[in-house]
Amino acid sequence: MSLFTAGILIIGDEILSGRTQDTNANFIAKNLTASGIKLEEIRVIQDEKKIIIDTVKFFSETYNYVFTTGGIGPTHDDITSESLAEAFNKKYETNAEAYNILKKYYPEGEFNISRQRMAKMPSDVELIYNPMTAAPGFKINNVFVLPGVPKIMEQMLKDVLIKLKKGNPKKITTINTNLYESKIAPSLNDIQNQFIDCSIGSYPYFNFISKKGGVNIVISSWKLNSLDEIEKEIIKMIKFNGGKYSIV
Amino acid sequence: MSLFTAGILIIGDEILSGRTQDTNANFIAKNLTASGIKLEEIRVIQDEKKIIIDTVKFFSETYNYVFTTGGIGPTHDDITSESLAEAFNKKYETNAEAYNILKKYYPEGEFNISRQRMAKMPSDVELIYNPMTAAPGFKINNVFVLPGVPKIMEQMLKDVLIKLKKGNPKKITTINTNLYESKIAPSLNDIQNQFIDCSIGSYPYFNFISKKGGVNIVISSWKLNSLDEIEKEIIKMIKFNGGKYSIV
Repeated sequence: MSLFTAGILIIGDEILSGRTQDTNANFIAKNLTASGIKLEEIRVIQDEKKIIIDTVKFFSETYNYVFTTGGIGPTHDDITSESLAEAFNKKYETNAEAYNILKKYYPEGEFNISRQRMAKMPSDVELIYNPMTAAPGFKINNVFVLPGVPKIMEQMLKDVLIKLKKGNPKKITTINTNLYESKIAPSLNDIQNQFIDCSIGSYPYFNFISKKGGVNIVISSWKLNSLDEIEKEIIKMIKFNGGKYSIV
Repeated sequence: MSLFTAGILIIGDEILSGRTQDTNANFIAKNLTASGIKLEEIRVIQDEKKIIIDTVKFFSETYNYVFTTGGIGPTHDDITSESLAEAFNKKYETNAEAYNILKKYYPEGEFNISRQRMAKMPSDVELIYNPMTAAPGFKINNVFVLPGVPKIMEQMLKDVLIKLKKGNPKKITTINTNLYESKIAPSLNDIQNQFIDCSIGSYPYFNFISKKGGVNIVISSWKLNSLDEIEKEIIKMIKFNGGKYSIV
């Protein structure tokens, strides 16, 4: 069974300053998991050329797929494209196809020098088309370079994922119980040790108003074809401890 | 002028799978910026001991302060504390103070073995008290170990920040204009080159319903004592280009 891995690189001082709550990583994460691709790391890094270059190289060598968001607009702080060119020893130059797409999109006389900058990319890339505001992203080696604006990024990612070589989807089931986490922790630990090809996550919650809480037990596996056996085992354990359960 | 840097480490498979949208990083980021601490990196990593150890060590050496969230609950998948002990060559053992806090918190007979596990920490740590659900976090070297549940983490972080040695707060001003980014990009670039101790971020937005857009120009500096001069320069430039502006 093949397993594809991924890393996400969020290029954005505005996330690090706290000015903006990033939602791109979560959107990409959900869609990767649904596509059978295992996301192993997310990094939010500064808009600094050297940091971008070093991190992209490391990610490109470490993961099957890399997704970057941010830094491909028309202003001086948009340095993703030139950094990617340097990371992969490519020329940073005007992409003829991107240039024509942008030229066609803007009204006569409004395709100014800053907008033209959005056609500058590493040489030999494959474009990722932008159905909303024309300015394309691109694929270089195993790196998918996407914009930072969520609505646009989301559209473009969906197109990327359709074409991507994927693994088997991750099997995942969530069992909710009204028992407290600490009550079931030792038994969950035992069950985890029995099923090593499966990962058991335990996510407690507590409502401070109703004073009621419980646990969502998330069973997941990239390897097994069925989670039935472990699911049965956990339900048996919940009943044994006098708890209620439901499959979420 | 002193500048303190920070890194955030989110330990959480549930973020990487896309199941949960992380909000902790943004909360910490905002509070660090307000406290005069420069956040330079956020990483979301897997619940894997070796990865946690390697990343914590690197962060601890690289940044003045490190904040981790997640993985300090009572279950088998909570491995942050034992990983931190290993990272700093400390024993992983029951902290007497934490043990007493937890023992007092739970009703007679309910302080079971899993809950006792939450008192196990690296030796010689300083506790970070938890005003909501008792289980404390801790500080080891320059690393602040906090829980993953947002409401609890947020309370604890505020207490941590009060005691922390801080730098001068970051100066920050946002100027909004109705001009499009590509129109002002060359001038912004020139202004950026004039004021190298200041960072100019350009954040375009577009409302697809009203078909109106513009740019938020964020000027910020960790070094300058005033942004007045650069602010004037940008306003002059906006007027020159026939645009409107407002200070946000």
